[in-house]
Amino acid sequence: ADHYRIVLLPGDGIGPEVCAEAVRVLKACTEAGGPAFAFTEHNAGGVAIDRDGDPMPDDTLAECAGADAVLLGAVGGPKWDELTGPMRPESGLLKLRKALGAFANLRPVSIPACLADHSPLKRDRIAGVDLLTVRELTGGIYFGQPVGREGEGDDERAWNTMLYSADEIRRVARVAFEWARKRRGVVTSVDKANVLEVSRLWRDTVRALHEAEYADVELNHLYVDNAAMQIVLRPAQFDVILTGNLFGDILSDTSATLGGSLGLLPSASLGGGTGLFEPVHGSAPDIAGEGKANPLAMILSAAMMLDDLGEANAADAVRRSADRVLEAGYRTADLRTPESKSASTSELGRMIAEEV
Amino acid sequence: ADHYRIVLLPGDGIGPEVCAEAVRVLKACTEAGGPAFAFTEHNAGGVAIDRDGDPMPDDTLAECAGADAVLLGAVGGPKWDELTGPMRPESGLLKLRKALGAFANLRPVSIPACLADHSPLKRDRIAGVDLLTVRELTGGIYFGQPVGREGEGDDERAWNTMLYSADEIRRVARVAFEWARKRRGVVTSVDKANVLEVSRLWRDTVRALHEAEYADVELNHLYVDNAAMQIVLRPAQFDVILTGNLFGDILSDTSATLGGSLGLLPSASLGGGTGLFEPVHGSAPDIAGEGKANPLAMILSAAMMLDDLGEANAADAVRRSADRVLEAGYRTADLRTPESKSASTSELGRMIAEEV
Ligand SMILES: CC(C)[C@H](C(=O)O)[C@@H](O)C(=O)O
Ligand SMILES: CC(C)[C@H](C(=O)O)[C@@H](O)C(=O)O
Repeated sequence: ADHYRIVLLPGDGIGPEVCAEAVRVLKACTEAGGPAFAFTEHNAGGVAIDRDGDPMPDDTLAECAGADAVLLGAVGGPKWDELTGPMRPESGLLKLRKALGAFANLRPVSIPACLADHSPLKRDRIAGVDLLTVRELTGGIYFGQPVGREGEGDDERAWNTMLYSADEIRRVARVAFEWARKRRGVVTSVDKANVLEVSRLWRDTVRALHEAEYADVELNHLYVDNAAMQIVLRPAQFDVILTGNLFGDILSDTSATLGGSLGLLPSASLGGGTGLFEPVHGSAPDIAGEGKANPLAMILSAAMMLDDLGEANAADAVRRSADRVLEAGYRTADLRTPESKSASTSELGRMIAEEV
Repeated sequence: ADHYRIVLLPGDGIGPEVCAEAVRVLKACTEAGGPAFAFTEHNAGGVAIDRDGDPMPDDTLAECAGADAVLLGAVGGPKWDELTGPMRPESGLLKLRKALGAFANLRPVSIPACLADHSPLKRDRIAGVDLLTVRELTGGIYFGQPVGREGEGDDERAWNTMLYSADEIRRVARVAFEWARKRRGVVTSVDKANVLEVSRLWRDTVRALHEAEYADVELNHLYVDNAAMQIVLRPAQFDVILTGNLFGDILSDTSATLGGSLGLLPSASLGGGTGLFEPVHGSAPDIAGEGKANPLAMILSAAMMLDDLGEANAADAVRRSADRVLEAGYRTADLRTPESKSASTSELGRMIAEEV
């Protein structure tokens, strides 16, 4: 096909606003002689609960699985916070990740020089930060069986299971090692092997794969508590961080603070053919519809999509355009300073599209 | 008894050095007319593995349970890192916590004004930081059954169970609410209730207890990924953070970075009668025996012990003495700056003892 089939799942809160800007930028790529796209839009998350009584209806899932890529804005919000189990917006997202077989979640963090003042960390601590978290996304305690809740009163109990197979660990470790080869050649694998049996299997498996196939890459192991600490104390020491689903959720959010705004951080979830691309930030219901949301995370997620589709030129063009607009001093509300020029969500999107 | 019976478990690495300084300071309290102590010392951790083939021999456990308090230095080190299961130094520590019924782990973090330059965070971000993590310590995924590992090759699998009963949640939540009443009246309960069933029970139970008995305290809920982020972005917003064993391990280490050195941070583990008091830092084998370790975390842990024994005057005297020595500019290697006066582990301990 000469069109890539892209499913858009704008979702809730600021999702639709930032998604629209990513589409605008992708269309600009086409006009500039780049790849062409056919977009179809579906409900997911809270809006899908309201319309269809299901945060991820089966036909949406099927559309996603048949597409070349899925762009997701954000799901969830206070309106659906009292719902439980499969009716939550978040379970729709988990179902989608699983259905796409998107077992490797990539979350890169680097801090553009012009934004260093926004970091909560001192300037010398963030110098040279350029890290990639590779988070396992379709296993671990998010999906492990058994899970349950039973009993009454003081005796009521609930449980989840953190489970990994060697195969699940190996395939995501492979992704981390491959990225390390393209980057600075260092993988830090994070677990809690001093306490958890599942982490011992994690560590053994990563170590064996390293010895067998990736001895050229440097491999270090950190306990998750120490890793959380090191990310704040000396973030520049990391190249690729490889970890499980729950630890990756926590540590990638810890890393996400380094730049001072979530509004910049993209992610890609890969593994099963169709990739899922979404910003790291949530649905931010408090600012939804006000034109305050930063579309950069979503636009940079679209750039990761272009990379995954093999459209490296277009991906680079999008990233360079975003850099130029930032360097020119334009900022959404999350990054505003007295010196910056303010821009709304759509103004920033339009400027980047024009640069492209 | 007119003597408090204190069991000392100096442990591995820098443990013995810092433990000796805490004892020195406690003896100074006695000489200054304060409480008296009878100390007995036992092996725990790696040294106990080497001597007795067990990181926490039963007779040590029995001594600890019969004491008024246990002071622990640190356990573990590379020498024992390849051991597995019950032979690991860490499993000795877990066994001790469980045997003492020490279900509530208290980890306070505040940043003395004279050390603000050491923080990785910018000065305005850490202004006003004064938080207490209340971590559940004898349940959750650290102890949940079933746990196992089976199969071969790609099919090898391993699992742990994150399990809580309402009763376990309620008793530690009670500790958090009581502390909040003595502090600024705010509890932030951290879970992953948007994904985990065990977290839903956590949230329901905390909420019900709050409504029934602690409606005067402000209660907020955060997801663990967001909490990790907020601790770095706006740490001063927190008063008491209440969370489970694994999340508490990660988040209390994240908070521990705020001051720039682990060497200052004490902890108390309470609940079963005999309290366990240990620094948050580990055994730091790389600097063991060199007089470089900061004894403050251990000394301040001894102050928490004094509080728990009802010796508030002595506890305050120890804390004030530590503050004065820091304000006078004396620092161990972890906190050294060009302007500070350097002190070894024992010099710092001696100065604090003299102040007392
Ligand atoms: C919304 C939630 C289920 C999700 C997760 O925990 O994976 C989010 O925090 C993320 O990191 O993408
Ligand atoms: C040593 C280890 C078992 C321990 C834990 O995870 O509880 C440590 O990290 C701590 O926080 O006290």
